[in-house]
Amino acid sequence: MSTHLSRELATVLDLKLDAAGLITAVTVDAETGEVLMVAHMNRAALEKTLATGQATYWSRSRNKLWIKGEESGHTQQVQSVLIDCDQDAVVVKVRQKGVACHTGYPSCFYRRIKPADAAGGPTLEFIARRPG
Amino acid sequence: MSTHLSRELATVLDLKLDAAGLITAVTVDAETGEVLMVAHMNRAALEKTLATGQATYWSRSRNKLWIKGEESGHTQQVQSVLIDCDQDAVVVKVRQKGVACHTGYPSCFYRRIKPADAAGGPTLEFIARRPG
Repeated sequence: MSTHLSRELATVLDLKLDAAGLITAVTVDAETGEVLMVAHMNRAALEKTLATGQATYWSRSRNKLWIKGEESGHTQQVQSVLIDCDQDAVVVKVRQKGVACHTGYPSCFYRRIKPADAAGGPTLEFIARRPG
Repeated sequence: MSTHLSRELATVLDLKLDAAGLITAVTVDAETGEVLMVAHMNRAALEKTLATGQATYWSRSRNKLWIKGEESGHTQQVQSVLIDCDQDAVVVKVRQKGVACHTGYPSCFYRRIKPADAAGGPTLEFIARRPG
């Protein structure tokens, strides 16, 4: 069996890391299913997430492990972690404390892209509100 | 206002492309909210997705635009596209025809990571079935 098929059909964790040693992490609200954010994990971040139950990412800007909410208090308690066919992306289902986005919106996806039309565009339309 | 703040709070589409000219695309089922797949888009793929209403990605393995389902028939009709705070990721809400994953599973995320325990691990547990 090729590595390709092994990755897709096996029960062995065999991450397909990118050139920077990272996979993509999509974090969703465990109750509503809403996509909260997209970030990255290296092997250590994934291991720490699984071991502690606190969502932990790799910060590409700060170049270090980043326990979500360690500064803001807006932590993410992990309910489960799913992995995709080629093992280069995970879905992290969490209970979000506070808001997921540093801008203050509950999710980072607070704008919809309005396709271009006769009036121009595309433009972005705000579809969420900041709580409080 | 810095470019940073402009990206986060403006209504102007100003993609933050990576070194390869790509953003991350998270495709979700418009009805159930389930994450179906994670892929990539370049500017042309996003424009084509918005203009045609058919989810179109950039295939990094084939190095070309990839209209989802063009070969399998498992197309994705786009309901809406959301963009995140720093404009390097989109959520594409679709009506999926057939299955999203080339393995035959409805979603690419058909396995859960079981954390390591006394018995070893981590291991992967199948949580979905292939239809038919």
